[in-house]
Amino acid sequence: MKNILIASTSTLANQNYLEYLLPELQLHFQNCKTILFIPYARPGGISHEEYTGMIRPAFAKINKKVIGIHEFENAPQAIKNAEGIFTGGGNTFVLVSQLYKNNVMEVLSETIKNGTPYLGTSAGSNICGLTMQTTNDMPIVYPPSFKTLGLIPFNLNPHYLDPDTSSSHMGETRETRIKEFHAYNSVPVLGLREGSWLEVKGDVITLKGPLTARLFSQNQIPTELETETNLSYIK
Amino acid sequence: MKNILIASTSTLANQNYLEYLLPELQLHFQNCKTILFIPYARPGGISHEEYTGMIRPAFAKINKKVIGIHEFENAPQAIKNAEGIFTGGGNTFVLVSQLYKNNVMEVLSETIKNGTPYLGTSAGSNICGLTMQTTNDMPIVYPPSFKTLGLIPFNLNPHYLDPDTSSSHMGETRETRIKEFHAYNSVPVLGLREGSWLEVKGDVITLKGPLTARLFSQNQIPTELETETNLSYIK
Repeated sequence: MKNILIASTSTLANQNYLEYLLPELQLHFQNCKTILFIPYARPGGISHEEYTGMIRPAFAKINKKVIGIHEFENAPQAIKNAEGIFTGGGNTFVLVSQLYKNNVMEVLSETIKNGTPYLGTSAGSNICGLTMQTTNDMPIVYPPSFKTLGLIPFNLNPHYLDPDTSSSHMGETRETRIKEFHAYNSVPVLGLREGSWLEVKGDVITLKGPLTARLFSQNQIPTELETETNLSYIK
Repeated sequence: MKNILIASTSTLANQNYLEYLLPELQLHFQNCKTILFIPYARPGGISHEEYTGMIRPAFAKINKKVIGIHEFENAPQAIKNAEGIFTGGGNTFVLVSQLYKNNVMEVLSETIKNGTPYLGTSAGSNICGLTMQTTNDMPIVYPPSFKTLGLIPFNLNPHYLDPDTSSSHMGETRETRIKEFHAYNSVPVLGLREGSWLEVKGDVITLKGPLTARLFSQNQIPTELETETNLSYIK
């Protein structure tokens, strides 16, 4: 049975890393002593070692040890053996490229579908959808495919931002970009604001956190979904 | 001799399409009766016909006829025969995919290098760099390559936005994204604010418009470049 948390962001303004999620994570990873961390998204281009070191203090607060996937010789085997898995944010193009390069995209998807507890934040959440095509990130490397884990039957836009109506900037708003996605793709897209997350328990997907989320479906007017809404109907 | 205008945006706030550039365009396209328009970037997913219709009024003001490349059976030949070429904005992934699909990426680069006057705005400017990897757009389609026209020896970030210091949003700033690009790539990136453009005459690249532009080079602190600066040293 799937057991997944998919968060818009790792960190809220003026808070520590994962601080707002720690009560959830304590429950989510209650049966894990050790978390396997996937640092492939390398925020700001930092190394896997640096990134893994950066997240350890948050998990130490809930008494979890963290091991980076780069510390294992056999990455697919590390995933199969993991008690719990966390993929952090950074650049989604880098993350997806590394998942393919290290031959773990498929085994990661299977392992999570079989019930290993998973946490994703930002880029690590993006990959939970069908494709990474609604990321906000720059294409700084060329991945072999945009296909991702497919843990939920729609796509995500983490760090969803409402249009700034006071701005004179002519670049596209987030909503405009997602509408463009729907000119070529029929997959629904959920705009997940910072502070929101999805809880996936088996086939039940529930919106969590204090905010509404914005659902974009092809050829339909976007709708705001209340927290605690069961999203399992979206496909 | 190259004769190119590379603009951050087609449109400034509260202005008509291309309005701020019309005096430049009158000179730039002075020897052209007809402009070949490349509508492949399809802003908002509009059709090639709609997009071409949308830009005609601006060019009518300087007495230019506009023909869309989709109106020709042989797209590469249309480029070779063009008096002047304009590629409009939209989604850079869609634009680059279509340039490859229609087999015109190489011939477009060669034709412009041989002197056919070219105007790019937004996505149509992005493709003037070495790669499209510093676009702001969503990867809504999967292009066969990120390599672009290479008309200038660096990359562009059109619609460059300064960090909003009042924002509590935790998504990456434009500067952070470009720094991440430089964790994997050595190509310099010029952040071109709305209202700025580059004029390329042969090998001389000059910053134009009322604003400064922000230059990002790998492992260096970004610098602000004044308008009218000769940028030919950047490589």
